[in-house]
Amino acid sequence: MLCHDRMGKSILITGGARSGKSTLAERMALALGRPAIYIATAQAHDTEMSDRIALHQSRRDADWRTVEAPRDLIGALRETDGTEPRLVDCLTLWLTNLMLADEDWQAATHALAAELAHQSAPVIFVTNEVGAGIVPENALARAFRDAAGLVNQRIADACDELWFCVAGHPLKVKPA
Amino acid sequence: MLCHDRMGKSILITGGARSGKSTLAERMALALGRPAIYIATAQAHDTEMSDRIALHQSRRDADWRTVEAPRDLIGALRETDGTEPRLVDCLTLWLTNLMLADEDWQAATHALAAELAHQSAPVIFVTNEVGAGIVPENALARAFRDAAGLVNQRIADACDELWFCVAGHPLKVKPA
Amino acid sequence: MLCHDRMGKSILITGGARSGKSTLAERMALALGRPAIYIATAQAHDTEMSDRIALHQSRRDADWRTVEAPRDLIGALRETDGTEPRLVDCLTLWLTNLMLADEDWQAATHALAAELAHQSAPVIFVTNEVGAGIVPENALARAFRDAAGLVNQRIADACDELWFCVAGHPLKVKPA
Repeated sequence: MLCHDRMGKSILITGGARSGKSTLAERMALALGRPAIYIATAQAHDTEMSDRIALHQSRRDADWRTVEAPRDLIGALRETDGTEPRLVDCLTLWLTNLMLADEDWQAATHALAAELAHQSAPVIFVTNEVGAGIVPENALARAFRDAAGLVNQRIADACDELWFCVAGHPLKVKPA
Repeated sequence: MLCHDRMGKSILITGGARSGKSTLAERMALALGRPAIYIATAQAHDTEMSDRIALHQSRRDADWRTVEAPRDLIGALRETDGTEPRLVDCLTLWLTNLMLADEDWQAATHALAAELAHQSAPVIFVTNEVGAGIVPENALARAFRDAAGLVNQRIADACDELWFCVAGHPLKVKPA
Repeated sequence: MLCHDRMGKSILITGGARSGKSTLAERMALALGRPAIYIATAQAHDTEMSDRIALHQSRRDADWRTVEAPRDLIGALRETDGTEPRLVDCLTLWLTNLMLADEDWQAATHALAAELAHQSAPVIFVTNEVGAGIVPENALARAFRDAAGLVNQRIADACDELWFCVAGHPLKVKPA
């Protein structure tokens, strides 16, 4: 198998809520190739979430094809692996979906990280920082932020690049 | 119109609570000129806040002149635009004040960002990162952190420099 | 007194929950010397905490000797000061322990920062970012995050290096 420059490149973009992660990820994906594939993990459980999905969709245009993958990210990555860059938005919702479905999120994270080595087209993941506030009083919230942090670490290890988004602007964390 | 070095420079400093943003901002402002003008958005609604304002004031001395502007930042910037550097502390409280007064914070943010191009003297904004904790259970808190993140992105776009403060020390985010 | 390279070096590592701070700190400590000394501030008040302590211990092996110091960090640093690097994990729990015991945490922080100048062997501190979420509704939580931020600033000032951990990867903040 030939190894082409930029082929298979994997990028993780993290940051707080409304730090501009998705916009940055969309720009990075389109810089890697047009059209690009948007792999959405969001499920419209309520109005707040469907409003947010609609807002994200309104920012994307004919440059994008959308695939929905609330839980089976590996399937979605395999199915879309060709030459077009993929944007997975986002890992935190994917984790939420796995937990709500009572799936083994640790095994799924490990498998997702391992899958990246077999991907030929670029993939950009968006995820959330949820661990920099005060310790939540709620045990479930503490368990979730622990899980989210571990997912971020595991995928960051497997990715070629890691970016931290601050007020819409990226800081490169990896490679250092 | 002549363009002088350092004239009109705009800087946004963000970070978590007690990350040393205000101290850093005060140092940066005085490095740009003395005396400097402190544009306070805080309103003393309760003892906790008045204690905090007093603490901030005690750190400033004869090098500073204070202007209060809970909501009309554009007015305060225009009125103080000369040669002295201005420090606006902080955008997160300004947003809170606009929301409490039921003003259109999105229009106000857009106008504030646009105003920066017309300012001759430097202006340094302090703001807060509020989006890196667990998703708040409270819908109002979620709406506020979304708004705060959008204000930060919009003003960061309009500023020449963006700094992220960690444990009292600045990381430069923009220009990269 | 001779000043040896690396002798007495002090490092502060901060980041959100599950950002990989402890793993990074352990790697840094062992890079400075083997075996290393783990100064644990954790106290097993409940099952959640004892599980977390067990997890941390399982990651360490014969390369480590453990000293428990829930509150008297200066005593522990003096007692262990020789040639072996020390890892203090973590300052946020130390602050919690001081507050629960009704001790003067500000004086203790000041004394700890001053002590660093007298230490001959390296010391690495781990601490938590707790101020980047939404403002807590609870006044005690607000007071704690203020105190935690001040401890981080004070110790960061006294340390030679400051690192911010993102998804398991370090960003150098100081020296800039």
